[in-house]
Amino acid sequence: MHLLHKRGDIGVKDFTVINCSLVVVSPWEVKSRVKVHVKDGVIDDVGDYQSGDVLDCEGGVLMSGLVNSHTHTPMSLLRGYKDDLDLHDWLRAMWEKEDDMSKEVMNVGSEISMIEMISSGTTSFVDMYFNPEGVRDLSEKYKVRAFAGETFMDTRESPEAVARRQRSLSSSRYFRPIVNVHSLYTASLESVRKAYEISEEQGTWIHMHISETREEVFQIKKRTGKFPIQLLHDEGLIDRIQAVHVGWVTNQELKYLSNATHCPTSNMKLATAGAFPFKEMYNAGANITLGTDGAASNNSLDMFREMKTAVLVQRHSYWDLWVKASHVLQASTLDGYKLIGVNGGEIRKGMVADMIILDPRRLRPLSEDRVLSNVVYNTTGDSVRKVLVDGNLIYDEEVKERFMGRLDELYSSIKSF
Amino acid sequence: MHLLHKRGDIGVKDFTVINCSLVVVSPWEVKSRVKVHVKDGVIDDVGDYQSGDVLDCEGGVLMSGLVNSHTHTPMSLLRGYKDDLDLHDWLRAMWEKEDDMSKEVMNVGSEISMIEMISSGTTSFVDMYFNPEGVRDLSEKYKVRAFAGETFMDTRESPEAVARRQRSLSSSRYFRPIVNVHSLYTASLESVRKAYEISEEQGTWIHMHISETREEVFQIKKRTGKFPIQLLHDEGLIDRIQAVHVGWVTNQELKYLSNATHCPTSNMKLATAGAFPFKEMYNAGANITLGTDGAASNNSLDMFREMKTAVLVQRHSYWDLWVKASHVLQASTLDGYKLIGVNGGEIRKGMVADMIILDPRRLRPLSEDRVLSNVVYNTTGDSVRKVLVDGNLIYDEEVKERFMGRLDELYSSIKSF
Repeated sequence: MHLLHKRGDIGVKDFTVINCSLVVVSPWEVKSRVKVHVKDGVIDDVGDYQSGDVLDCEGGVLMSGLVNSHTHTPMSLLRGYKDDLDLHDWLRAMWEKEDDMSKEVMNVGSEISMIEMISSGTTSFVDMYFNPEGVRDLSEKYKVRAFAGETFMDTRESPEAVARRQRSLSSSRYFRPIVNVHSLYTASLESVRKAYEISEEQGTWIHMHISETREEVFQIKKRTGKFPIQLLHDEGLIDRIQAVHVGWVTNQELKYLSNATHCPTSNMKLATAGAFPFKEMYNAGANITLGTDGAASNNSLDMFREMKTAVLVQRHSYWDLWVKASHVLQASTLDGYKLIGVNGGEIRKGMVADMIILDPRRLRPLSEDRVLSNVVYNTTGDSVRKVLVDGNLIYDEEVKERFMGRLDELYSSIKSF
Repeated sequence: MHLLHKRGDIGVKDFTVINCSLVVVSPWEVKSRVKVHVKDGVIDDVGDYQSGDVLDCEGGVLMSGLVNSHTHTPMSLLRGYKDDLDLHDWLRAMWEKEDDMSKEVMNVGSEISMIEMISSGTTSFVDMYFNPEGVRDLSEKYKVRAFAGETFMDTRESPEAVARRQRSLSSSRYFRPIVNVHSLYTASLESVRKAYEISEEQGTWIHMHISETREEVFQIKKRTGKFPIQLLHDEGLIDRIQAVHVGWVTNQELKYLSNATHCPTSNMKLATAGAFPFKEMYNAGANITLGTDGAASNNSLDMFREMKTAVLVQRHSYWDLWVKASHVLQASTLDGYKLIGVNGGEIRKGMVADMIILDPRRLRPLSEDRVLSNVVYNTTGDSVRKVLVDGNLIYDEEVKERFMGRLDELYSSIKSF
């Protein structure tokens, strides 16, 4: 029995997490006095069994790693850039800057975002931008699960060129391709059809902004006679789609959505004003996930903060306390893993060992009946002390130091941007 | 020239803050390459002048300490306690627990809250509870500005008993009495009149929950024929009042309010649904401040998070980007100091040296044009590295360690609560 101190693949083999004060087994269940045995990257036992190396929780709280289901990683470079402008002027400022972005610059932004996400407990993320190979390489470097792809956006590039590159994009250990379609107001139905085809070929899904603003919905309705989700349904395209934002959706469209992502902070900050129908879709059995959106609109990539904001805006918009801590935790764990097709999101036998350990002193009062509440409403990603993906320890106090140094390098490399 | 390393009163005399990467002079102005000279607890120069001891900013960002204009410090003990219940059941659970609270227990809660607030950059706070002497003693111990008083709440105690104790409450260096009235639905107009009298005698103001819920407004209207703020105005009581929450206010009442406090997180979490009329009151010249409310409803006391949430909910509620980072920073600094009657809230000659230093690595990209945005939208109280009140260094890395140990003691002392 050795202390698990080496990083990399050692953790994948056989080890046991001991000395946790509490284990958040699922969004609805918390256990104390249990050990978690991991074998070959998968949780093998939650209980008394101990085998292999030891990972000492040091009294911390163990829980599932979080899935950030919608972001734009390169945009950490645009964080805080003119972001109190009115929406129209802000978008123009973004686009101008984005037109200047080389792949090298995008890589810098993606790496900054990955470091931030890992440090704050995100172990998987879904990305929309224009540099999936870069994201793939970085995800292998950092051993974090990344889902990215080319992005259909007809205003920027021809669908043919996008499709060609997307078809050449392959999986690797931590990376899987997805197909991005920016939106119905920037990509034609033809592009969405092409995206659909490729997503079938690649066994993946389409990640797409849908019904984010009232103006967008109005435009599509005027152009096609249909609301966006209705249109995608009628065209036979909705079943492979992860709909992001969904702030402006009619009641009759709700039944068509099986995968939707809530990005509360971004929607609020840009004053898009809609209401994400969390309760209705949840009760209809949809898979609801949570995302920070990019750092240009959020401006943080901390999923803990996003969970709290999600509860707050739901309660505020609906005058109703129905959405609770457990719902947003489910959206960030269990349902996030469902979206990405990975068997995870709970600390249970058979699930991947994507886990994080939180500082117990930051979750006080620390007790079984309050820990869910303290995770969602009080703490932030700063509580994260250790992060494991696939049983690999990818973040701890020592890695944190290295990350800080790497951020210094990255930021100084793009001073002029 | 010595390094400012001793704490306590040494800082009050004569020292200069050097090596800041940026200084947030006011909610609208940021300077680089300036030194801040402090003499006798007051800012004496912002520019080149250097004298006395040295406080090394270590490349950090210097800004004004924050004012938390509404909280209930003992309630950190109730953080996370049954807090996903429906409002009615939640309030009943709170009241049951609160009836059990001895002054000793309240002191524990207040001390926990003060440690949390100082660590996250709050240098002054306005408190409503039932233990002002305890808060006074703690504020002297921690050298943080506290404003607390007895609380009129007829359902709990006779106004005469409250008035008697309030009249015996005196100021000390860091503490000043204020008069608390819980609300119009728990205190009679007679109590408010008594509170008004005492607040005149003591040269202070009345801190009061007003128009938080629709039900409350309906109740007052039914009972008196008037909306709450209208009623207080017609009774000649409004000019000494700091109105907290103000989520349900009619247009005709707006012109009567000169002091209002926004507590966005608490309002959202409890689904009270109203809209704080930030823009209207701001444009009418009202003094608008920001508060976290107690840890039972928030559940954090971090004013940085509160600033972001304030912008988010304003934009969401009004479909409008009018409220910007600078407004909520003004509410948490300059206007907070106006409320408490202290000449502070900017890094300018003549202002009290209530200042905080933020870790520059957490405000990236760190540049003059982005720092306001990064302070409000990205960072949290975890960025705070040093805190000064009245020129005294009351928080730094070493104090942080002590605080952590003290929190361990405090939490273990109330395990049974």
